[in-house]
Amino acid sequence: MRHIPIILLGYGNVGRAFVRLVEEKRDRLNQDYGLNLVWTTIFRREGRYDFPPIGESDHPVIEKDGLKFGELKTGRVLNDLKSLLREAPGGVMVDGSVSDQKTGQPGYDYWKKAFSWGWHVVTANKGPLVYDYKGLHNSAHQNRCGLGISGATAAALPTVDLALYALAGADIQSVEGILNGTSNYILTRMGEGVDYAEALSEAQGKGIAEPDPAMDVEGWDTAYKILLITNASTELKYSLNDVSVKGITSISRQEVEKAAREGKRIKLLGRFERTDTGGILEVAPRAVGPDHPLFWVNGTEKGITFETDTMGSISAVGGRSSPVGAAAALLKDLINIVRQHDNKSD
Amino acid sequence: MRHIPIILLGYGNVGRAFVRLVEEKRDRLNQDYGLNLVWTTIFRREGRYDFPPIGESDHPVIEKDGLKFGELKTGRVLNDLKSLLREAPGGVMVDGSVSDQKTGQPGYDYWKKAFSWGWHVVTANKGPLVYDYKGLHNSAHQNRCGLGISGATAAALPTVDLALYALAGADIQSVEGILNGTSNYILTRMGEGVDYAEALSEAQGKGIAEPDPAMDVEGWDTAYKILLITNASTELKYSLNDVSVKGITSISRQEVEKAAREGKRIKLLGRFERTDTGGILEVAPRAVGPDHPLFWVNGTEKGITFETDTMGSISAVGGRSSPVGAAAALLKDLINIVRQHDNKSD
Repeated sequence: MRHIPIILLGYGNVGRAFVRLVEEKRDRLNQDYGLNLVWTTIFRREGRYDFPPIGESDHPVIEKDGLKFGELKTGRVLNDLKSLLREAPGGVMVDGSVSDQKTGQPGYDYWKKAFSWGWHVVTANKGPLVYDYKGLHNSAHQNRCGLGISGATAAALPTVDLALYALAGADIQSVEGILNGTSNYILTRMGEGVDYAEALSEAQGKGIAEPDPAMDVEGWDTAYKILLITNASTELKYSLNDVSVKGITSISRQEVEKAAREGKRIKLLGRFERTDTGGILEVAPRAVGPDHPLFWVNGTEKGITFETDTMGSISAVGGRSSPVGAAAALLKDLINIVRQHDNKSD
Repeated sequence: MRHIPIILLGYGNVGRAFVRLVEEKRDRLNQDYGLNLVWTTIFRREGRYDFPPIGESDHPVIEKDGLKFGELKTGRVLNDLKSLLREAPGGVMVDGSVSDQKTGQPGYDYWKKAFSWGWHVVTANKGPLVYDYKGLHNSAHQNRCGLGISGATAAALPTVDLALYALAGADIQSVEGILNGTSNYILTRMGEGVDYAEALSEAQGKGIAEPDPAMDVEGWDTAYKILLITNASTELKYSLNDVSVKGITSISRQEVEKAAREGKRIKLLGRFERTDTGGILEVAPRAVGPDHPLFWVNGTEKGITFETDTMGSISAVGGRSSPVGAAAALLKDLINIVRQHDNKSD
């Protein structure tokens, strides 16, 4: 049995789903993977939760999600982190918080600190990755640590791990993905004769689209994901400036109907294609026919297709889009990283 | 750089495709994975090829697939193996040969010997696996060796590695697969109005179906694959007797037409479903509608769907069916196994 200390950043929907998932799966993780995940600290915006609880009067003991922990109000995350990381090298920092993708902060500094003390990072937080994937990748590599980004790319849909494991040894020539459920839902409804504005407000009514849907419908969420998937799946390391981005806000019903008359459907595709000089990265709506493997991916569903030299075309479709799906993605990355990195101590 | 000795069993279509693939990918394997695959010996029915060639008069030097090796006529594979395995623990035995699935021989004995000397096995040969998956799995495990079976399950279509890596930590509740291209081709053509006999002879004419198509159309190939995928993807360990098998030979045009009138298609599905008391394993033709993720998998294409507790439904579709696809599957298993097992020596 290997005991793996865990620091969790963020205790919102994803963080809480992760805590509940680990507690639900505790026996299976022991049995199937020989892993015992040991909660160390949960950092929240308002302070930190510590395990085991100290239980003094100024550290009230709180019970939540089946766990008891001591609550400590402190804003000094970076300072507090140092001593925690130093105490238990080989732990995993799980990031379920949100960082700014323009600065990568605050996650960027936490992760760098984690790597420097030999901690792995698995994340549902895209910000630091979009800000500087290459720098973080190199930092992880130099410190022989893992960086698991499934939770930040398309949660339960296999993307990066499909490339790294199922396509190991193959050259990836192109990647195409329907990576944003909201815009795919809107396009699917438009294909059924509904206007953009109506489809959007329907999606908002159902809680599929955010009140401010810009990130999804303007293609940025897709851009982040195809950027990260490409960076993690190939030897190439792009930044956000390299992605040409067009969303679905200007798609008219006429365009959708024209596509339908040709037996096609309009999909918002994130694409990477290898070229003689490197590659191109773009997000744009495209009309695809039934011979395209992602033609069949409708509604809020997501899918991804890799074209390879030796294995042909391989697609993955599905995967739950929810805090539970994201938590499951964090957990799978954690399992894959610890079994690949530290089996000396088996 | 890690030097990995390779013994290859079989030098037919798959074995030769594997040799060519490794030579083509030599630089990329070095660069991307830090691996140098070192040919040791290729065992054929007629004798063995040795590297480097000794080049005496009774060991003629032969050049094939870009390699030079010494040819030795010998039938004593098991005897010869012993000394080879002993010389280089941590090597990989790549099985591109064919064994009887009723006895597992001759592969079964070779693999056991390999594990006992610390060699990993990756295989496109189903025979030993169908004969005694559990015994081989245990033998590999006890000797801390890997057993890679992608090449024997659906070649370039991700199946077992999808389960082991992309679904790590999730409970697999069911598996459904279209795992045999020949029968899917025949069913697809029948859906287009062609009789069974006509579709079969068409498939034979195109080289899709064997002259004796029994293994494919009677469901046995699918049975082997769903058995092996289930055994490798879950904690359950079934044998062939546990699989209920029905093929497509008695499907009438009327049945196909009836399904079509209901908007459905008949597919030969290999299925595993978890039950309260364990699970059921079966192969049978089933009418599936457009809400089924494998409805869209037509012609010679293959696909697989996993239902999980935390990630929802995840499907993979595609993957080249050819000796190159099988060789690529052997290579990916080899890469995944050596990077998971021996990173002490990085």
